[in-house]
Amino acid sequence: MTADATETTVTEEVVAALRATADPRLHELIEGLVRHLHDFVRETRLTREEWEKAVGFLTETGQTCTDTRQEFILLSDVLGVSMLVETVNGHHTAGVTRSTVLGPFHMSASPVRELGDSIDLVGDGEPCVVSGRVLDEDGTPLPGAVLDVWQADAEGYYDVQRPDLRPAGNGRGLFTADSEGRFRFRTCVPAPYPIPTDGPVGELLRATGRHPYRPAHIHFIATADGHEPVTTHIFVGGSDHLDSDAVFAVKWSLVKDFAPTDDPSLAREFGVPNPFRHARFDLVLERSA
Amino acid sequence: MTADATETTVTEEVVAALRATADPRLHELIEGLVRHLHDFVRETRLTREEWEKAVGFLTETGQTCTDTRQEFILLSDVLGVSMLVETVNGHHTAGVTRSTVLGPFHMSASPVRELGDSIDLVGDGEPCVVSGRVLDEDGTPLPGAVLDVWQADAEGYYDVQRPDLRPAGNGRGLFTADSEGRFRFRTCVPAPYPIPTDGPVGELLRATGRHPYRPAHIHFIATADGHEPVTTHIFVGGSDHLDSDAVFAVKWSLVKDFAPTDDPSLAREFGVPNPFRHARFDLVLERSA
Repeated sequence: MTADATETTVTEEVVAALRATADPRLHELIEGLVRHLHDFVRETRLTREEWEKAVGFLTETGQTCTDTRQEFILLSDVLGVSMLVETVNGHHTAGVTRSTVLGPFHMSASPVRELGDSIDLVGDGEPCVVSGRVLDEDGTPLPGAVLDVWQADAEGYYDVQRPDLRPAGNGRGLFTADSEGRFRFRTCVPAPYPIPTDGPVGELLRATGRHPYRPAHIHFIATADGHEPVTTHIFVGGSDHLDSDAVFAVKWSLVKDFAPTDDPSLAREFGVPNPFRHARFDLVLERSA
Repeated sequence: MTADATETTVTEEVVAALRATADPRLHELIEGLVRHLHDFVRETRLTREEWEKAVGFLTETGQTCTDTRQEFILLSDVLGVSMLVETVNGHHTAGVTRSTVLGPFHMSASPVRELGDSIDLVGDGEPCVVSGRVLDEDGTPLPGAVLDVWQADAEGYYDVQRPDLRPAGNGRGLFTADSEGRFRFRTCVPAPYPIPTDGPVGELLRATGRHPYRPAHIHFIATADGHEPVTTHIFVGGSDHLDSDAVFAVKWSLVKDFAPTDDPSLAREFGVPNPFRHARFDLVLERSA
Protein backbone atom coordinates (compact mmCIF):
# COMPACT_ATOMS: atom_id res chain seq x y z
CA MET A 1 0.00 0.00 0.00
CA THR A 2 1.14 3.50 -0.79
CA ALA A 3 1.16 5.92 2.12
CA ASP A 4 0.59 9.60 1.41
CA ALA A 5 3.73 10.77 -0.37
CA THR A 6 5.88 13.47 1.15
CA GLU A 7 8.36 15.80 -0.57
CA THR A 8 11.15 13.29 -0.08
CA THR A 9 9.35 9.95 -0.35
CA VAL A 10 8.02 10.76 -3.80
CA THR A 11 11.60 10.91 -5.11
CA GLU A 12 12.44 7.53 -3.58
CA GLU A 13 9.23 6.09 -5.03
CA VAL A 14 10.24 7.17 -8.54
CA VAL A 15 13.81 5.91 -8.09
CA ALA A 16 12.44 2.54 -6.89
CA ALA A 17 10.16 2.34 -9.94
CA LEU A 18 13.24 2.63 -12.20
CA ARG A 19 14.96 -0.43 -10.74
CA ALA A 20 13.94 -2.73 -13.63
CA THR A 21 15.72 -0.56 -16.24
CA ALA A 22 17.63 -3.07 -18.38
CA ASP A 23 20.42 -0.76 -19.60
CA PRO A 24 22.63 0.26 -16.64
CA ARG A 25 23.74 3.50 -18.31
CA LEU A 26 20.15 4.54 -19.01
CA HIS A 27 19.33 3.68 -15.40
CA GLU A 28 22.13 5.96 -14.18
CA LEU A 29 21.05 8.82 -16.46
CA ILE A 30 17.33 8.69 -15.66
CA GLU A 31 17.91 8.32 -11.92
CA GLY A 32 20.33 11.27 -11.98
CA LEU A 33 17.84 13.33 -13.97
CA VAL A 34 14.99 12.54 -11.57
CA ARG A 35 17.10 13.41 -8.52
CA HIS A 36 18.21 16.76 -10.00
CA LEU A 37 14.73 17.69 -11.27
CA HIS A 38 13.22 16.89 -7.87
CA ASP A 39 15.95 18.81 -6.02
CA PHE A 40 15.28 21.78 -8.31
CA VAL A 41 11.52 21.70 -7.55
CA ARG A 42 12.11 21.37 -3.78
CA GLU A 43 14.81 24.04 -3.61
CA THR A 44 12.89 26.62 -5.64
CA ARG A 45 9.45 25.67 -4.19
CA LEU A 46 8.23 25.67 -7.81
CA THR A 47 4.59 26.77 -7.98
CA ARG A 48 1.90 25.14 -10.10
CA GLU A 49 1.72 28.23 -12.30
CA GLU A 50 5.48 28.11 -12.89
CA TRP A 51 5.23 24.39 -13.67
CA GLU A 52 2.44 25.10 -16.17
CA LYS A 53 4.53 27.83 -17.76
CA ALA A 54 7.48 25.44 -18.05
CA VAL A 55 5.26 22.79 -19.69
CA GLY A 56 4.00 25.40 -22.15
CA PHE A 57 7.53 26.62 -22.87
CA LEU A 58 8.88 23.13 -23.56
CA THR A 59 5.87 22.27 -25.72
CA GLU A 60 6.33 25.42 -27.80
CA THR A 61 10.06 24.70 -28.09
CA GLY A 62 9.30 21.25 -29.54
CA GLN A 63 6.67 22.62 -31.86
CA THR A 64 9.01 25.34 -33.15
CA CYS A 65 11.36 22.63 -34.50
CA THR A 66 11.17 21.91 -38.23
CA ASP A 67 13.40 20.18 -40.77
CA THR A 68 15.52 23.34 -40.86
CA ARG A 69 15.22 24.65 -37.29
CA GLN A 70 16.21 22.95 -34.05
CA GLU A 71 14.91 25.05 -31.14
CA PHE A 72 15.87 22.49 -28.46
CA ILE A 73 19.52 22.63 -29.56
CA LEU A 74 19.22 26.41 -29.42
CA LEU A 75 17.81 26.15 -25.87
CA SER A 76 20.66 23.84 -24.86
CA ASP A 77 23.08 26.32 -26.45
CA VAL A 78 21.84 29.45 -24.63
CA LEU A 79 21.83 27.61 -21.29
CA GLY A 80 25.49 26.64 -21.83
CA VAL A 81 24.57 22.94 -21.76
CA SER A 82 25.88 22.25 -25.29
CA MET A 83 29.21 23.90 -24.51
CA LEU A 84 29.49 21.96 -21.26
CA VAL A 85 28.80 18.65 -23.05
CA GLU A 86 31.51 19.55 -25.58
CA THR A 87 33.90 20.42 -22.78
CA VAL A 88 33.20 17.23 -20.80
CA ASN A 89 33.81 15.17 -23.96
CA GLY A 90 36.59 17.28 -25.40
CA HIS A 91 40.16 16.25 -26.05
CA HIS A 92 42.57 18.00 -23.78
CA THR A 93 45.90 16.85 -25.16
CA ALA A 94 48.15 19.88 -25.55
CA GLY A 95 48.18 21.20 -29.11
CA VAL A 96 45.01 19.36 -30.22
CA THR A 97 42.33 21.60 -31.76
CA ARG A 98 39.66 22.38 -29.18
CA SER A 99 36.04 21.52 -29.85
CA THR A 100 33.04 23.79 -29.55
CA VAL A 101 29.28 23.53 -30.05
CA LEU A 102 27.65 21.96 -33.11
CA GLY A 103 24.90 24.58 -33.13
CA PRO A 104 21.43 24.21 -34.63
CA PHE A 105 22.29 24.71 -38.31
CA HIS A 106 24.05 21.46 -39.18
CA MET A 107 20.81 20.17 -40.60
CA SER A 108 21.50 19.30 -44.23
CA ALA A 109 24.32 17.30 -45.83
CA SER A 110 27.04 19.62 -47.11
CA PRO A 111 27.63 19.35 -50.88
CA VAL A 112 30.86 17.58 -51.86
CA ARG A 113 33.28 20.16 -53.27
CA GLU A 114 36.81 20.19 -54.70
CA LEU A 115 39.68 21.86 -52.86
CA GLY A 116 39.79 25.51 -53.89
CA ASP A 117 36.05 25.65 -54.68
CA SER A 118 33.93 28.47 -53.34
CA ILE A 119 31.18 27.80 -50.83
CA ASP A 120 29.85 31.32 -51.41
CA LEU A 121 27.34 30.76 -54.21
CA VAL A 122 26.16 34.38 -54.16
CA GLY A 123 29.37 36.38 -54.15
CA ASP A 124 28.22 39.61 -52.54
CA GLY A 125 30.41 39.45 -49.42
CA GLU A 126 34.03 40.30 -48.68
CA PRO A 127 36.17 37.68 -50.50
CA CYS A 128 38.05 35.31 -48.26
CA VAL A 129 40.31 32.30 -48.50
CA VAL A 130 40.54 29.71 -45.75
CA SER A 131 43.50 27.36 -45.92
CA GLY A 132 45.56 25.10 -43.73
CA ARG A 133 46.36 21.49 -42.96
CA VAL A 134 44.85 18.60 -41.02
CA LEU A 135 47.51 17.07 -38.78
CA ASP A 136 48.07 14.30 -36.29
CA GLU A 137 48.97 15.45 -32.79
CA ASP A 138 52.67 14.83 -33.63
CA GLY A 139 52.43 17.10 -36.68
CA THR A 140 52.16 14.36 -39.33
CA PRO A 141 49.79 15.42 -42.14
CA LEU A 142 46.57 13.41 -42.48
CA PRO A 143 45.88 12.92 -46.21
CA GLY A 144 42.24 12.12 -46.97
CA ALA A 145 40.96 13.84 -43.82
CA VAL A 146 37.41 15.09 -44.43
CA LEU A 147 36.23 18.60 -43.49
CA ASP A 148 32.54 19.40 -43.22
CA VAL A 149 32.27 23.21 -43.33
CA TRP A 150 29.25 25.47 -42.83
CA GLN A 151 28.85 29.18 -42.15
CA ALA A 152 26.47 32.12 -42.19
CA ASP A 153 26.67 34.50 -45.15
CA ALA A 154 27.89 38.11 -45.13
CA GLU A 155 24.50 39.18 -43.78
CA GLY A 156 24.53 36.62 -40.98
CA TYR A 157 22.12 34.00 -42.36
CA TYR A 158 22.53 30.27 -43.03
CA ASP A 159 21.12 29.01 -46.33
CA VAL A 160 18.24 27.19 -44.56
CA GLN A 161 17.08 30.43 -42.96
CA ARG A 162 16.52 32.15 -46.31
CA PRO A 163 15.53 29.44 -48.80
CA ASP A 164 13.88 32.16 -50.91
CA LEU A 165 17.06 34.25 -51.21
CA ARG A 166 19.90 31.73 -50.95
CA PRO A 167 20.51 28.52 -52.92
CA ALA A 168 20.58 25.33 -50.81
CA GLY A 169 24.19 24.53 -49.94
CA ASN A 170 25.26 28.17 -49.83
CA GLY A 171 27.99 28.47 -47.21
CA ARG A 172 28.42 24.68 -46.99
CA GLY A 173 31.02 22.27 -48.36
CA LEU A 174 32.47 18.82 -47.78
CA PHE A 175 36.20 18.84 -48.58
CA THR A 176 38.84 16.09 -48.63
CA ALA A 177 42.38 17.07 -47.69
CA ASP A 178 45.08 16.39 -50.32
CA SER A 179 48.05 14.01 -50.11
CA GLU A 180 49.82 16.41 -47.76
CA GLY A 181 46.79 16.99 -45.53
CA ARG A 182 46.17 20.42 -47.04
CA PHE A 183 42.77 22.04 -47.51
CA ARG A 184 41.68 25.30 -49.10
CA PHE A 185 38.39 26.89 -50.02
CA ARG A 186 36.97 30.25 -51.03
CA THR A 187 34.13 31.96 -49.23
CA CYS A 188 33.01 35.35 -47.93
CA VAL A 189 33.80 36.64 -44.45
CA PRO A 190 30.84 35.53 -42.31
CA ALA A 191 28.96 38.16 -40.30
CA PRO A 192 28.12 38.06 -36.59
CA TYR A 193 24.44 37.23 -36.28
CA PRO A 194 21.61 36.94 -33.81
CA ILE A 195 20.37 33.42 -33.14
CA PRO A 196 16.68 33.14 -34.08
CA THR A 197 14.68 35.22 -31.60
CA ASP A 198 11.15 34.72 -32.94
CA GLY A 199 10.62 31.52 -30.91
CA PRO A 200 10.58 30.54 -27.23
CA VAL A 201 14.37 30.78 -26.91
CA GLY A 202 14.17 34.41 -28.05
CA GLU A 203 11.56 35.03 -25.35
CA LEU A 204 13.89 33.49 -22.79
CA LEU A 205 16.78 35.73 -23.88
CA ARG A 206 14.61 38.86 -23.63
CA ALA A 207 13.26 37.83 -20.23
CA THR A 208 16.81 37.32 -18.94
CA GLY A 209 18.13 40.59 -20.39
CA ARG A 210 20.54 38.93 -22.81
CA HIS A 211 21.48 39.82 -26.39
CA PRO A 212 21.17 37.09 -29.03
CA TYR A 213 24.41 37.68 -30.95
CA ARG A 214 27.14 35.28 -31.87
CA PRO A 215 30.58 36.49 -33.00
CA ALA A 216 31.42 35.74 -36.65
CA HIS A 217 32.60 32.15 -37.16
CA ILE A 218 32.93 29.23 -39.57
CA HIS A 219 31.91 25.71 -38.43
CA PHE A 220 34.05 22.62 -39.02
CA ILE A 221 33.72 18.93 -38.34
CA ALA A 222 37.06 17.25 -39.12
CA THR A 223 37.34 13.47 -39.39
CA ALA A 224 40.32 11.27 -40.26
CA ASP A 225 40.97 7.52 -40.01
CA GLY A 226 42.45 6.51 -36.68
CA HIS A 227 41.65 9.87 -35.08
CA GLU A 228 38.94 11.37 -32.89
CA PRO A 229 36.65 13.63 -34.92
CA VAL A 230 36.46 17.25 -33.79
CA THR A 231 33.43 19.57 -34.00
CA THR A 232 34.63 23.14 -33.82
CA HIS A 233 34.53 26.71 -35.19
CA ILE A 234 37.09 29.24 -36.15
CA PHE A 235 36.12 32.70 -34.97
CA VAL A 236 36.93 35.83 -36.98
CA GLY A 237 39.53 37.76 -34.97
CA GLY A 238 38.24 41.20 -33.98
CA SER A 239 34.59 40.26 -34.50
CA ASP A 240 31.97 41.88 -32.27
CA HIS A 241 30.59 39.74 -29.40
CA LEU A 242 33.70 37.57 -28.94
CA ASP A 243 33.43 38.27 -25.20
CA SER A 244 29.68 37.72 -24.91
CA ASP A 245 28.74 34.92 -27.30
CA ALA A 246 25.04 34.10 -26.73
CA VAL A 247 25.90 30.39 -26.70
CA PHE A 248 29.18 30.56 -24.69
CA ALA A 249 31.11 28.80 -27.47
CA VAL A 250 34.21 30.99 -27.77
CA LYS A 251 37.53 29.37 -26.97
CA TRP A 252 40.36 31.77 -27.29
CA SER A 253 42.53 29.27 -29.16
CA LEU A 254 39.89 29.15 -31.92
CA VAL A 255 39.97 32.88 -32.67
CA LYS A 256 41.97 33.31 -35.89
CA ASP A 257 43.37 36.23 -37.82
CA PHE A 258 41.45 36.80 -41.06
CA ALA A 259 44.35 38.78 -42.48
CA PRO A 260 43.60 41.57 -44.96
CA THR A 261 45.72 40.60 -47.98
CA ASP A 262 46.61 42.81 -50.93
CA ASP A 263 48.53 40.51 -53.28
CA PRO A 264 47.29 40.35 -56.90
CA SER A 265 49.31 37.25 -57.81
CA LEU A 266 48.15 35.32 -54.71
CA ALA A 267 44.58 36.47 -55.41
CA ARG A 268 44.94 35.08 -58.98
CA GLU A 269 46.31 31.80 -57.62
CA PHE A 270 43.36 31.43 -55.27
CA GLY A 271 40.85 32.70 -57.81
CA VAL A 272 39.56 35.57 -55.69
CA PRO A 273 39.34 39.35 -56.34
CA ASN A 274 42.18 41.39 -54.82
CA PRO A 275 42.29 42.50 -51.97
CA PHE A 276 40.90 39.63 -49.91
CA ARG A 277 41.01 38.22 -46.38
CA HIS A 278 43.06 35.13 -45.65
CA ALA A 279 42.51 32.82 -42.62
CA ARG A 280 45.27 30.25 -42.19
CA PHE A 281 45.18 27.57 -39.54
CA ASP A 282 45.80 23.90 -38.93
CA LEU A 283 43.36 21.39 -37.48
CA VAL A 284 45.17 19.00 -35.13
CA LEU A 285 43.37 15.74 -34.30
CA GLU A 286 43.93 13.42 -31.38
CA ARG A 287 44.81 9.80 -32.18
CA SER A 288 42.05 7.33 -31.28
CA ALA A 289 42.77 5.19 -28.23
CA MET B 1 38.30 38.39 -23.44
CA THR B 2 36.98 34.89 -22.95
CA ALA B 3 39.56 32.32 -21.95
CA ASP B 4 39.03 28.70 -22.96
CA ALA B 5 36.10 27.50 -20.84
CA THR B 6 36.53 24.63 -18.43
CA GLU B 7 33.88 22.32 -17.00
CA THR B 8 33.31 24.68 -14.11
CA THR B 9 33.92 28.11 -15.65
CA VAL B 10 31.26 27.56 -18.30
CA THR B 11 28.61 27.35 -15.55
CA GLU B 12 29.81 30.59 -13.97
CA GLU B 13 29.84 32.25 -17.40
CA VAL B 14 26.18 31.34 -17.93
CA VAL B 15 25.21 32.43 -14.42
CA ALA B 16 26.96 35.77 -15.00
CA ALA B 17 25.11 36.24 -18.29
CA LEU B 18 21.80 35.97 -16.40
CA ARG B 19 22.56 38.87 -14.06
CA ALA B 20 20.41 41.36 -16.01
CA THR B 21 17.22 39.29 -15.55
CA ALA B 22 14.59 41.84 -14.50
CA ASP B 23 12.27 39.51 -12.58
CA PRO B 24 14.04 38.24 -9.44
CA ARG B 25 11.93 35.05 -9.27
CA LEU B 26 12.73 34.20 -12.92
CA HIS B 27 16.38 34.87 -12.15
CA GLU B 28 16.27 32.41 -9.24
CA LEU B 29 14.51 29.74 -11.31
CA ILE B 30 16.75 29.97 -14.39
CA GLU B 31 19.94 30.09 -12.35
CA GLY B 32 18.80 27.06 -10.33
CA LEU B 33 17.91 25.22 -13.53
CA VAL B 34 21.28 25.98 -15.12
CA ARG B 35 23.18 24.84 -12.02
CA HIS B 36 21.25 21.54 -11.80
CA LEU B 37 21.46 20.83 -15.53
CA HIS B 38 25.21 21.49 -15.51
CA ASP B 39 25.72 19.35 -12.38
CA PHE B 40 23.79 16.56 -14.10
CA VAL B 41 26.01 16.74 -17.22
CA ARG B 42 29.22 16.81 -15.16
CA GLU B 43 28.19 14.03 -12.76
CA THR B 44 27.00 11.67 -15.50
CA ARG B 45 29.74 12.64 -18.01
CA LEU B 46 26.94 12.92 -20.56
CA THR B 47 28.22 11.98 -24.03
CA ARG B 48 27.41 13.82 -27.25
CA GLU B 49 25.37 10.86 -28.48
CA GLU B 50 23.31 10.89 -25.26
CA TRP B 51 22.83 14.66 -25.58
CA GLU B 52 21.65 14.18 -29.19
CA LYS B 53 19.24 11.48 -28.06
CA ALA B 54 17.89 13.78 -25.34
CA VAL B 55 17.39 16.60 -27.87
CA GLY B 56 15.55 14.16 -30.16
CA PHE B 57 13.41 12.87 -27.28
CA LEU B 58 12.37 16.35 -26.13
CA THR B 59 11.64 17.44 -29.70
CA GLU B 60 9.43 14.39 -30.28
CA THR B 61 7.69 14.99 -26.95
CA GLY B 62 6.81 18.53 -28.02
CA GLN B 63 5.69 17.41 -31.44
CA THR B 64 3.45 14.70 -29.97
CA CYS B 65 1.39 17.39 -28.21
CA THR B 66 -1.92 18.33 -29.84
CA ASP B 67 -5.06 20.13 -28.70
CA THR B 68 -6.13 16.92 -26.97
CA ARG B 69 -2.81 15.40 -25.91
CA GLN B 70 -0.16 16.86 -23.61
CA GLU B 71 2.93 14.64 -23.76
CA PHE B 72 5.09 17.00 -21.64
CA ILE B 73 2.62 16.79 -18.75
CA LEU B 74 2.74 13.01 -19.19
CA LEU B 75 6.54 13.13 -19.05
CA SER B 76 6.41 15.27 -15.90
CA ASP B 77 3.89 12.79 -14.46
CA VAL B 78 5.92 9.61 -15.07
CA LEU B 79 9.06 11.25 -13.63
CA GLY B 80 7.14 12.11 -10.45
CA VAL B 81 7.71 15.84 -11.03
CA SER B 82 3.99 16.67 -11.21
CA MET B 83 3.29 14.85 -7.96
CA LEU B 84 6.22 16.59 -6.28
CA VAL B 85 4.99 20.03 -7.43
CA GLU B 86 1.54 19.18 -6.02
CA THR B 87 3.12 18.06 -2.75
CA VAL B 88 5.34 21.14 -2.42
CA ASN B 89 2.29 23.36 -3.00
CA GLY B 90 -0.25 21.23 -1.17
CA HIS B 91 -2.21 22.16 1.91
CA HIS B 92 -1.17 20.20 4.92
CA THR B 93 -3.72 21.31 7.50
CA ALA B 94 -5.10 18.21 9.22
CA GLY B 95 -8.40 17.11 7.72
CA VAL B 96 -8.08 19.12 4.51
CA THR B 97 -8.50 17.10 1.32
CA ARG B 98 -5.09 16.24 -0.14
CA SER B 99 -4.23 17.28 -3.68
CA THR B 100 -2.83 15.13 -6.45
CA VAL B 101 -1.78 15.55 -10.07
CA LEU B 102 -3.84 17.36 -12.70
CA GLY B 103 -2.88 14.84 -15.38
CA PRO B 104 -2.85 15.45 -19.13
CA PHE B 105 -6.59 15.14 -19.85
CA HIS B 106 -7.93 18.37 -18.38
CA MET B 107 -7.90 19.87 -21.84
CA SER B 108 -11.46 20.95 -22.59
CA ALA B 109 -13.96 22.91 -20.52
CA SER B 110 -16.31 20.57 -18.68
CA PRO B 111 -20.00 21.06 -19.62
CA VAL B 112 -22.11 22.76 -16.97
CA ARG B 113 -24.48 20.17 -15.46
CA GLU B 114 -27.20 20.10 -12.79
CA LEU B 115 -26.74 18.22 -9.53
CA GLY B 116 -27.87 14.63 -10.07
CA ASP B 117 -27.10 14.68 -13.81
CA SER B 118 -25.16 11.87 -15.38
CA ILE B 119 -21.72 12.49 -16.85
CA ASP B 120 -21.85 9.05 -18.53
CA LEU B 121 -23.38 9.90 -21.88
CA VAL B 122 -23.01 6.34 -23.17
CA GLY B 123 -24.35 4.23 -20.34
CA ASP B 124 -22.58 0.94 -20.95
CA GLY B 125 -20.59 0.80 -17.69
CA GLU B 126 -21.42 -0.21 -14.13
CA PRO B 127 -23.82 2.43 -12.75
CA CYS B 128 -22.42 4.59 -10.00
CA VAL B 129 -23.43 7.53 -7.83
CA VAL B 130 -20.88 9.94 -6.39
CA SER B 131 -22.15 12.18 -3.59
CA GLY B 132 -20.88 14.23 -0.71
CA ARG B 133 -20.34 17.74 0.55
CA VAL B 134 -17.85 20.54 0.09
CA LEU B 135 -16.81 21.84 3.51
CA ASP B 136 -14.63 24.43 5.17
CA GLU B 137 -11.85 23.05 7.34
CA ASP B 138 -14.09 23.57 10.42
CA GLY B 139 -16.88 21.48 8.84
CA THR B 140 -19.08 24.39 7.72
CA PRO B 141 -20.74 23.61 4.35
CA LEU B 142 -19.66 25.74 1.39
CA PRO B 143 -22.78 26.49 -0.70
CA GLY B 144 -21.96 27.46 -4.28
CA ALA B 145 -18.63 25.61 -4.31
CA VAL B 146 -17.83 24.53 -7.87
CA LEU B 147 -16.65 21.02 -8.76
CA ASP B 148 -14.96 20.35 -12.09
CA VAL B 149 -15.11 16.57 -12.61
CA TRP B 150 -13.54 14.38 -15.31
CA GLN B 151 -12.91 10.68 -15.62
CA ALA B 152 -12.12 7.84 -17.99
CA ASP B 153 -14.99 5.64 -19.14
CA ALA B 154 -15.61 2.00 -18.22
CA GLU B 155 -13.06 0.97 -20.85
CA GLY B 156 -10.39 3.35 -19.55
CA TYR B 157 -10.60 6.14 -22.14
CA TYR B 158 -11.22 9.87 -21.82
CA ASP B 159 -13.62 11.39 -24.36
CA VAL B 160 -10.78 13.21 -26.16
CA GLN B 161 -8.97 9.91 -26.78
CA ARG B 162 -11.86 8.45 -28.74
CA PRO B 163 -13.66 11.31 -30.47
CA ASP B 164 -15.02 8.79 -32.99
CA LEU B 165 -16.66 6.62 -30.31
CA ARG B 166 -17.49 9.01 -27.48
CA PRO B 167 -19.37 12.32 -27.51
CA ALA B 168 -17.34 15.36 -26.42
CA GLY B 169 -17.97 15.98 -22.72
CA ASN B 170 -18.45 12.29 -21.91
CA GLY B 171 -17.16 11.73 -18.38
CA ARG B 172 -16.98 15.48 -17.68
CA GLY B 173 -19.16 17.86 -15.71
CA LEU B 174 -19.08 21.21 -13.92
CA PHE B 175 -21.32 21.12 -10.84
CA THR B 176 -22.29 23.75 -8.28
CA ALA B 177 -22.90 22.58 -4.72
CA ASP B 178 -26.35 23.32 -3.27
CA SER B 179 -27.26 25.57 -0.32
CA GLU B 180 -25.92 22.96 2.10
CA GLY B 181 -22.68 22.36 0.18
CA ARG B 182 -23.95 19.05 -1.19
CA PHE B 183 -23.09 17.60 -4.59
CA ARG B 184 -24.24 14.48 -6.41
CA PHE B 185 -23.83 13.07 -9.89
CA ARG B 186 -24.32 9.85 -11.77
CA THR B 187 -21.61 8.14 -13.76
CA CYS B 188 -20.13 4.73 -14.47
CA VAL B 189 -17.31 3.20 -12.45
CA PRO B 190 -14.11 4.28 -14.22
CA ALA B 191 -11.64 1.60 -15.29
CA PRO B 192 -7.91 1.51 -14.59
CA TYR B 193 -6.12 2.44 -17.79
CA PRO B 194 -2.68 2.69 -19.37
CA ILE B 195 -1.44 6.21 -20.02
CA PRO B 196 -0.78 6.69 -23.76
CA THR B 197 2.20 4.53 -24.73
CA ASP B 198 2.43 5.25 -28.45
CA GLY B 199 4.64 8.34 -27.95
CA PRO B 200 8.05 9.11 -26.46
CA VAL B 201 6.80 8.70 -22.87
CA GLY B 202 5.69 5.16 -23.74
CA GLU B 203 9.20 4.48 -25.08
CA LEU B 204 10.67 5.76 -21.83
CA LEU B 205 8.41 3.49 -19.75
CA ARG B 206 9.39 0.45 -21.83
CA ALA B 207 13.11 1.31 -21.64
CA THR B 208 12.86 1.61 -17.85
CA GLY B 209 10.86 -1.62 -17.42
CA ARG B 210 7.74 0.09 -16.08
CA HIS B 211 4.05 -0.62 -16.70
CA PRO B 212 1.86 2.28 -17.87
CA TYR B 213 -1.22 1.67 -15.70
CA ARG B 214 -3.07 4.01 -13.43
CA PRO B 215 -5.53 2.77 -10.82
CA ALA B 216 -9.18 3.70 -11.47
CA HIS B 217 -9.97 7.25 -10.37
CA ILE B 218 -12.17 10.32 -10.87
CA HIS B 219 -10.57 13.79 -11.12
CA PHE B 220 -11.84 16.84 -9.23
CA ILE B 221 -10.94 20.49 -9.05
CA ALA B 222 -12.92 22.06 -6.21
CA THR B 223 -13.13 25.85 -5.84
CA ALA B 224 -15.02 27.97 -3.33
CA ASP B 225 -14.90 31.67 -2.43
CA GLY B 226 -12.40 32.43 0.32
CA HIS B 227 -10.77 29.01 0.04
CA GLU B 228 -7.75 27.49 -1.64
CA PRO B 229 -8.77 25.44 -4.67
CA VAL B 230 -7.80 21.76 -4.62
CA THR B 231 -6.89 19.59 -7.62
CA THR B 232 -7.34 15.97 -6.66
CA HIS B 233 -8.70 12.50 -7.51
CA ILE B 234 -10.73 9.94 -5.68
CA PHE B 235 -9.40 6.44 -6.31
CA VAL B 236 -11.69 3.43 -6.55
CA GLY B 237 -10.95 1.29 -3.49
CA GLY B 238 -9.69 -2.17 -4.47
CA SER B 239 -8.65 -1.06 -7.97
CA ASP B 240 -5.62 -2.72 -9.57
CA HIS B 241 -2.36 -0.70 -9.56
CA LEU B 242 -3.10 1.32 -6.41
CA ASP B 243 0.40 0.42 -5.19
CA SER B 244 2.20 1.08 -8.48
CA ASP B 245 0.50 4.06 -10.14
CA ALA B 246 2.54 4.98 -13.24
CA VAL B 247 2.37 8.65 -12.21
CA PHE B 248 2.89 8.23 -8.43
CA ALA B 249 -0.36 10.07 -7.67
CA VAL B 250 -1.97 7.79 -5.08
CA LYS B 251 -2.51 9.22 -1.63
CA TRP B 252 -4.05 6.74 0.69
CA SER B 253 -6.52 9.27 2.08
CA LEU B 254 -7.96 9.66 -1.43
CA VAL B 255 -8.85 5.98 -1.87
CA LYS B 256 -12.62 5.68 -1.36
CA ASP B 257 -15.05 2.84 -1.03
CA PHE B 258 -17.26 2.54 -4.12
CA ALA B 259 -19.80 0.54 -2.12
CA PRO B 260 -21.90 -2.06 -3.98
CA THR B 261 -25.45 -0.99 -3.17
CA ASP B 262 -28.61 -3.04 -3.65
CA ASP B 263 -31.44 -0.68 -2.70
CA PRO B 264 -34.24 -0.22 -5.27
CA SER B 265 -35.75 2.85 -3.60
CA LEU B 266 -32.38 4.61 -3.31
CA ALA B 267 -31.65 3.66 -6.92
CA ARG B 268 -34.97 5.24 -7.94
CA GLU B 269 -34.15 8.38 -5.94
CA PHE B 270 -30.78 8.70 -7.70
CA GLY B 271 -32.18 7.68 -11.08
CA VAL B 272 -29.82 4.73 -11.61
CA PRO B 273 -30.50 1.03 -12.27
CA ASN B 274 -30.33 -1.21 -9.20
CA PRO B 275 -27.84 -2.49 -8.04
CA PHE B 276 -25.26 0.29 -8.31
CA ARG B 277 -22.03 1.48 -6.71
CA HIS B 278 -22.05 4.46 -4.37
CA ALA B 279 -18.97 6.56 -3.53
CA ARG B 280 -19.57 9.00 -0.67
CA PHE B 281 -16.99 11.51 0.45
CA ASP B 282 -16.53 15.12 1.48
CA LEU B 283 -14.13 17.62 -0.02
CA VAL B 284 -12.60 19.80 2.71
CA LEU B 285 -11.00 23.05 1.59
CA GLU B 286 -8.44 25.17 3.39
CA ARG B 287 -9.38 28.77 4.10
CA SER B 288 -7.35 31.30 2.08
CA ALA B 289 -4.76 33.24 4.06
